[in-house]
Amino acid sequence: MYEGAVQDLIDELGRLPGVGPKSAQRIAFHLLQADAEDVTRLVTALTEVKAKVRFCEECGNVAQGERCRICADPRRDHSAICVVEEPKDVVAIERTREFRGTYHVLGGAISPIDGIGPDDLRVRELMQRLAGGEVQEVIIATDPNLEGEATATYLSRLLRTTVPDLAVTRLASGLPVGGDLEYADEVTLGRAFEGRRRVDA
Amino acid sequence: MYEGAVQDLIDELGRLPGVGPKSAQRIAFHLLQADAEDVTRLVTALTEVKAKVRFCEECGNVAQGERCRICADPRRDHSAICVVEEPKDVVAIERTREFRGTYHVLGGAISPIDGIGPDDLRVRELMQRLAGGEVQEVIIATDPNLEGEATATYLSRLLRTTVPDLAVTRLASGLPVGGDLEYADEVTLGRAFEGRRRVDA
Repeated sequence: MYEGAVQDLIDELGRLPGVGPKSAQRIAFHLLQADAEDVTRLVTALTEVKAKVRFCEECGNVAQGERCRICADPRRDHSAICVVEEPKDVVAIERTREFRGTYHVLGGAISPIDGIGPDDLRVRELMQRLAGGEVQEVIIATDPNLEGEATATYLSRLLRTTVPDLAVTRLASGLPVGGDLEYADEVTLGRAFEGRRRVDA
Repeated sequence: MYEGAVQDLIDELGRLPGVGPKSAQRIAFHLLQADAEDVTRLVTALTEVKAKVRFCEECGNVAQGERCRICADPRRDHSAICVVEEPKDVVAIERTREFRGTYHVLGGAISPIDGIGPDDLRVRELMQRLAGGEVQEVIIATDPNLEGEATATYLSRLLRTTVPDLAVTRLASGLPVGGDLEYADEVTLGRAFEGRRRVDA
């Protein structure tokens, strides 16, 4: 529809996740009218990311060297591993400042519908890390949805049978802080009951 | 939050129109995991568009030379100009195959709220094209919204006073084809009545 280069750009942008044909067109025209430096900055960022960023050999998180900042940090507690689905989950947990251990990024969750099984995730790499015997606790922090729960169940069974001495824990389910009890769905409310804790004093 | 290059890419993507922080993160991780060729293709498309594409000296549409394909085509009727807001409107009208004349892209619409007046649009360039005396008809095809209507009213007055012999027309307002009369808003239905046409035979 458009002349060569414009249509090529619209096509390429349309391949990105969450960018439909209309958004692709809008972004393309924005870039056409943008300053040359703005486009150069975007091009540089794209090129740099492919040149510099790889995945941590230890945990699978994004990294600029062989190991990510967290795995390379001797002040982190290397006896605790928090297992998450994606690098963005690491960022979310780091923001809480609650956890001083290391991570293990699976690269997704078990989803038979999408043809993703344990072999497609970094499960073998997790078992190798545990083989050293240094790790005392594995905290499973997959998403609280169908795929994440399936992954958590699979992992906790696998860990309990192969590494019996390991403490395997999961993040608590319950009412979100700042929420309204009335608006909580019944599964969440049920979990909040199930996981109720004794109040001291 | 992320290591250098990843965060830089997320920041740059987040500057694009319609791309929020979450989408920027999603696109960045998609690109991180994508094949190097996919990213190269996107980078090439971005670079090419800035190197090759400019705006037609005559009509303001996107062009790969001094003039766009339509202005450069001798088979098009150069005595009729269809005035639109953006290059994407040219594409929409071309798709109908109803119009064989040329276009004039204003680059927006009059919008006092956004501080856009006639001097910010390519109105002067339109008047220069009309000065030659070759143009017989100007069809105003701005968007049927507040800004588009204001622009159409401004332009039709300006054209009628400065080029009295010119035929100035506007696209018909009325019921969209394939729509349901019942669901038409009252303004559209009112316009459809106002613009009713005699049925021949």
